[in-house]
Amino acid sequence: MNSFVYDIPVKVYFGPDQLGHLGEELKKYGNRVLLTYGGGSIKKIGLYDKVVAEIKKAGLELFELSGIEPNPRITSVNKGAEICKKENIDVLLAVGGGSTIDATKFIGAGAFYEGDAWDLVTGKAPITKCLPIVTILTLAATGSEMDAGGVISNLDTNEKLGNGHPTMLPKVSFLDPTNTYSVSAYQTACGAADIMSHIIEVYFNMNKDLYMLDTVAEGLMKTVIKYTPIAIKEPDNYEARANLMWASSWAINGFIDGGKKQAWSCHPMEHELSAFYDITHGLGLAILTPRWMEYTLDETTVSKFYQFGCNVFDIDKSMEPMAVAKKSIEMLSDFFFKTLGLKSTLTEIGIDDSNFEIMAKKACKGSIIQGFKPLKQEDILNIYKMCL
Amino acid sequence: MNSFVYDIPVKVYFGPDQLGHLGEELKKYGNRVLLTYGGGSIKKIGLYDKVVAEIKKAGLELFELSGIEPNPRITSVNKGAEICKKENIDVLLAVGGGSTIDATKFIGAGAFYEGDAWDLVTGKAPITKCLPIVTILTLAATGSEMDAGGVISNLDTNEKLGNGHPTMLPKVSFLDPTNTYSVSAYQTACGAADIMSHIIEVYFNMNKDLYMLDTVAEGLMKTVIKYTPIAIKEPDNYEARANLMWASSWAINGFIDGGKKQAWSCHPMEHELSAFYDITHGLGLAILTPRWMEYTLDETTVSKFYQFGCNVFDIDKSMEPMAVAKKSIEMLSDFFFKTLGLKSTLTEIGIDDSNFEIMAKKACKGSIIQGFKPLKQEDILNIYKMCL
Repeated sequence: MNSFVYDIPVKVYFGPDQLGHLGEELKKYGNRVLLTYGGGSIKKIGLYDKVVAEIKKAGLELFELSGIEPNPRITSVNKGAEICKKENIDVLLAVGGGSTIDATKFIGAGAFYEGDAWDLVTGKAPITKCLPIVTILTLAATGSEMDAGGVISNLDTNEKLGNGHPTMLPKVSFLDPTNTYSVSAYQTACGAADIMSHIIEVYFNMNKDLYMLDTVAEGLMKTVIKYTPIAIKEPDNYEARANLMWASSWAINGFIDGGKKQAWSCHPMEHELSAFYDITHGLGLAILTPRWMEYTLDETTVSKFYQFGCNVFDIDKSMEPMAVAKKSIEMLSDFFFKTLGLKSTLTEIGIDDSNFEIMAKKACKGSIIQGFKPLKQEDILNIYKMCL
Repeated sequence: MNSFVYDIPVKVYFGPDQLGHLGEELKKYGNRVLLTYGGGSIKKIGLYDKVVAEIKKAGLELFELSGIEPNPRITSVNKGAEICKKENIDVLLAVGGGSTIDATKFIGAGAFYEGDAWDLVTGKAPITKCLPIVTILTLAATGSEMDAGGVISNLDTNEKLGNGHPTMLPKVSFLDPTNTYSVSAYQTACGAADIMSHIIEVYFNMNKDLYMLDTVAEGLMKTVIKYTPIAIKEPDNYEARANLMWASSWAINGFIDGGKKQAWSCHPMEHELSAFYDITHGLGLAILTPRWMEYTLDETTVSKFYQFGCNVFDIDKSMEPMAVAKKSIEMLSDFFFKTLGLKSTLTEIGIDDSNFEIMAKKACKGSIIQGFKPLKQEDILNIYKMCL
């Protein structure tokens, strides 16, 4: 069991009646606010007007960057960083899902960097500091509202890379489940797959770790499995949206890690998929995860799958461990592809094997992913092929 | 479902190799450190020497207050506040269990108050600020290392009262499970009962709340049930001590509340027991809780007990809800009184009914406890009698 430092000082306002605190929170960091958002859905749901009203009421000066892409691009990050420098921005307000928040984190870091912010994503230049960030979440998925990392795409190089820094952790996040009522069934399903994947990447671990955190991970997964179908059927079911939203934050804020050091497996494989094909991250994860599970299941790993099957899917404990394990993968597949209705193969979404070799090489950086089971380039290639 | 604010910025160093960070953390708040501790067990386990060495190494000036009692008394608090004022203390370092940390919180608040710090406990005077607090935990029980409250006893008035303030939240807590290796079987058991009670006070709630947090509460309870017997049998089992320690913090740091507003029931009843008889808090809670459960179980509350029984004690879901409920109380009693070996009645620990009337009146402040089931004075009296 490894030691760890727990340090998640994000303040969260949870609930539908909290936006009145926005002005006072922004003011703590200064007067010049850069509001960042995506394609304009926040205008459709009326959130944009409410946010601007609160900012005006607080007497703050407002600047804007809109048009942040679903797989946010470095071009948007550089544009935002430029505004920060030119306008002496004090605080960033990201209103949107993980893409907007991720981009905003690198905008905040880019404000202190002379040069292409892509250097901060690749690690060519170190992230040293970041403007303070406040977020208003509109999609339960990436957990970016409560963690210190982000993932940025570069279409010029076909790269999608992640990086992070403690100063990129949002100071305050507003989590209002009603802001996710308008999220489509498809995006709700993709968000759920993303949340599940964040938990699975940590939970599937053979190290001796804090059992207590395994129970939390299992509870979070049960929450996603219970409420996603409800949110899809009844988009304005508060209980469902609230549970999914809070679960999304806790899936990846670091709490369930508890000192686990193992590399993630499906995320780097998926990042290549969306880097090459610009697909929705959660969809890629849904397609990959069950195949990765099939590929990694063997006598050495079966005990973890057994635990997963019994505690998350309530499979009969008295069954043979291997049978439980196989059934658990089947039930996860059914959840993604039947219950949530996501496409189950890469072929169905128009992806063939033409880039698999290079994607596999990039996913493991030409070496090996030291995950639940170590994955070499050929293993990754095999998993991609299983997804066809 | 109520809205809530989540704001727990305590930094936690977890593990046996973290004390090297003590100096740098204390230094952030100043140079003059008041070290507070209890009866000297920290000297027996060698922790005192290590702490002093780190403080010296960091070049800080050390002051001391020892002798803080197990049910910490206002006299110790006033003594500590006096030292803070006289010596211009910058930061408090509490090394011990919940009693030491609770007292230290009021010492930190008392440093800014001219007068008897008991006024801050009773609420006669408002708590306005508190010196920064760093803790080194030596007992998994109260969760004081990660919350903003404390409970203080006044032997002159037979009162044991709690209060809190956001500024009383520790800045940093060091959680080293090996520091609990020397905790006796009895104190380990009492600590476990305290943790269980913190969770039960919140979990037993008929409001519609975040299901996700129920799964976390259930996981924490399963953790305590799984590991306490191990820690009792093998006091230096790291896995057991680590799980109990981290569970103690999360049982009461506010996370599992998720906007639940309901009053606690067993804690105010127990505070009267230990105010009148100076018994160990956890023991009082172990004796009270199953009786309180029996008293509150009826057709309106049975569904929560059913959930508790199935999810925490793995009782067969197909049984009648009322049968599951009764069995869950039986299993909790067995856990406290058979597995952990705690005394099961007040009679056994020398307490008779002579003060029950006045204790019942004080527990509900002459009115009513608006808990899981509202408890009037006569209800509380009945529950006390069931404990004989």
